[in-house]
Amino acid sequence: MELELVTIGTELLLGFTVDTNSAFLGQALAAIGVRITRRTSVADEPAAVAAAVAEALARSRLVITTGGLGPTRDDLSKNVVAELFELPLEFQPELWDAIVARFARMGRSLSERNRCQAEVPRGATVLPNPRGTAPGLWISGARGEVIMLPGVPAEMRGLVNGEVVPRLSARSGGGVIRSRVLRTTGIAESSLAERLDQVEEALAPLTLAYLPSLEGVDLRLTNWQGPPDEADRLLEEAAGRLLAPIADHVYGEADQDLAEVVIGLLRERGWTLAVAESCTGGMLGERLTTVAGASAVFLGGLIAYHDGLKRELGVSARILELHGAVSEETVLAMALAARQRYGANAAVAVSGIAGPSGGSPEKPVGTVWIGIADDSGSEAHRAVFPGSRQDIRVRATQAALWRLWRRTRAATFQGQSGHAGAGA
Amino acid sequence: MELELVTIGTELLLGFTVDTNSAFLGQALAAIGVRITRRTSVADEPAAVAAAVAEALARSRLVITTGGLGPTRDDLSKNVVAELFELPLEFQPELWDAIVARFARMGRSLSERNRCQAEVPRGATVLPNPRGTAPGLWISGARGEVIMLPGVPAEMRGLVNGEVVPRLSARSGGGVIRSRVLRTTGIAESSLAERLDQVEEALAPLTLAYLPSLEGVDLRLTNWQGPPDEADRLLEEAAGRLLAPIADHVYGEADQDLAEVVIGLLRERGWTLAVAESCTGGMLGERLTTVAGASAVFLGGLIAYHDGLKRELGVSARILELHGAVSEETVLAMALAARQRYGANAAVAVSGIAGPSGGSPEKPVGTVWIGIADDSGSEAHRAVFPGSRQDIRVRATQAALWRLWRRTRAATFQGQSGHAGAGA
Repeated sequence: MELELVTIGTELLLGFTVDTNSAFLGQALAAIGVRITRRTSVADEPAAVAAAVAEALARSRLVITTGGLGPTRDDLSKNVVAELFELPLEFQPELWDAIVARFARMGRSLSERNRCQAEVPRGATVLPNPRGTAPGLWISGARGEVIMLPGVPAEMRGLVNGEVVPRLSARSGGGVIRSRVLRTTGIAESSLAERLDQVEEALAPLTLAYLPSLEGVDLRLTNWQGPPDEADRLLEEAAGRLLAPIADHVYGEADQDLAEVVIGLLRERGWTLAVAESCTGGMLGERLTTVAGASAVFLGGLIAYHDGLKRELGVSARILELHGAVSEETVLAMALAARQRYGANAAVAVSGIAGPSGGSPEKPVGTVWIGIADDSGSEAHRAVFPGSRQDIRVRATQAALWRLWRRTRAATFQGQSGHAGAGA
Repeated sequence: MELELVTIGTELLLGFTVDTNSAFLGQALAAIGVRITRRTSVADEPAAVAAAVAEALARSRLVITTGGLGPTRDDLSKNVVAELFELPLEFQPELWDAIVARFARMGRSLSERNRCQAEVPRGATVLPNPRGTAPGLWISGARGEVIMLPGVPAEMRGLVNGEVVPRLSARSGGGVIRSRVLRTTGIAESSLAERLDQVEEALAPLTLAYLPSLEGVDLRLTNWQGPPDEADRLLEEAAGRLLAPIADHVYGEADQDLAEVVIGLLRERGWTLAVAESCTGGMLGERLTTVAGASAVFLGGLIAYHDGLKRELGVSARILELHGAVSEETVLAMALAARQRYGANAAVAVSGIAGPSGGSPEKPVGTVWIGIADDSGSEAHRAVFPGSRQDIRVRATQAALWRLWRRTRAATFQGQSGHAGAGA
């Protein structure tokens, strides 16, 4: 089943309001196999609303609108749609009584303006809205059907969950849109696409979307129709085929954060972690401590932003002078010193040039060194990240977590296989 | 001037992505008097993209698109629009060289797929995109004009600010929607409304909106029409009247971040700053180092997440045992020790219970102590913040910055008046 969405509100076009209603509706409908084929946003102007709804009906015959049902002057959606369907508005006394009772409960005084909220296009189904005064409306006619919902997010959500989803899912007959997301990092979108080229060709009927962000590229597999069990089986199988050529980069699924994955991995090992941060200035610690229960693993560490604090940690003045603060030698010294001073099993250090100034031909803005020291040794990596100061810091933090994840995972695998060998 | 917006991306319709690009574009364009009359969102399907762009052009002749410019299979917007304008795609060697150089700088390998990103519809203006590989495109023809932007928010914003706004504002000239935002923190929305009650009544024709977030409440004054000079005068006058009853809470305007304001204030004083963070885990350092040039003021500090690191910093085991890690005594000891060890003029310490576990009847989840030590003494404050773990951490970080701002500002005022007195 397909439908179009028309969101009504001048504030949406002016950008004063971020349109979270649309995302909610997209997800709620996809879950019952209903696909939104187009979304149109228009201002609170009768002609604009009429044109958008009429065009949407002409294309899909089923339309959901949000907004424009309130009691104020600019709320005209209901009148416009009633006119499109050539239906008169009828005052409904029982609706009016409910509105009066609601205002009395809230101790608010009612105004004449509210009366129009008790008017309903003839023959329309009223969808009760316990969270507000404007009910939803389900209008049918020769042009098709329009489901009108209020724009206030809590009211809209209540009506979608309570009225729209049950009614539409009764019609749609079982099929669902189901997705699965693999989260990757440390690899460019184009390199991913190259590695997945052959797998991608054989994915049908599933589709694959690349969703890049500063922290990596999410791969979303989607199954667009069919029974849920079959969808899950197809997605499971396809996820396995996707994983094989890029396993070093897939750290999780869905909403999992890399910091959460790293904390989980270290906790399994029984390891503690410390950090020493220069250009990220605390961002790495912040990411790690976002995870509830991080304290079982994360001890803390030094924000060694100024070179004085790097020396205080234990990086020798000679290393800083000879190699500079952004160097392999310095991040290794930082990681080793943080591990020792704070008594952690592993320590990660980051030092880089986040800009906007401070770059040089040999070390351009974006140059970042990452060092890791743990019970079994140390390693360091250089990268040059693009983007703004903040972009570079976000990428550097993600890269530090990724390097730690790779190293710890590899050590865990080795440990496991060693262990298995010893037991044989 | 008016235009339509077409946002392209299956993830937008499925609700996997909240469309923040549209809000950004709405605001950026309103600021130069350009109005978005309609916004259409369609999936990454050639026929859907072609129909949406063609219809938008027929209505308004000027269209901005976002999304669908990447290197993967589902990125087809450019080809579709080129076809609409009957323009062949031409490979541009200099664009390719820039992409190659960009990948080389980042130490990443390029794939054949990226070649298509160097193809441009004949005659189109290339809008350089320093944050990504896909440039923006400005295509003109008999049907009108299409400005194509990438969908990655950071890239889209960079292109809008750097290329689109300057070019369109050169054309627009005239009436504008002008706003002014006062940023407040440390005071509830209802208390603000109470203090501003009388001022608010006399604001017409301006409107006042309260925009609450975790970091405080922004007050947006808007003038909806008329010449820019008159609008600025009205906004200036109204902002002054708003400020008077809430001056202790207004730390800046528009997009100013409190961390930026604090860094500026300390730099003026010639002071350095260190931090000691427990529950915020690096978030305070992260906020401070987001500011370009923070290194003139911010030295760094300790993420003392585990109590072992608080002791290592210099908080006595006796204080921790007697009063606990979340206490007035501990944050003061942390601030004093951080100031001394890292040689800063001022130090801020934060310790609290971010949850979800760890609360008690005397110290419920959300309890946060903030301590400040500087050349002229010390102070500590307790607060109990609502919300999730992350909400509490964000509020605690903002509160620490606000307390530091108030103390430093007061000291600056006293210093100035003392200085003036001495000179008199």
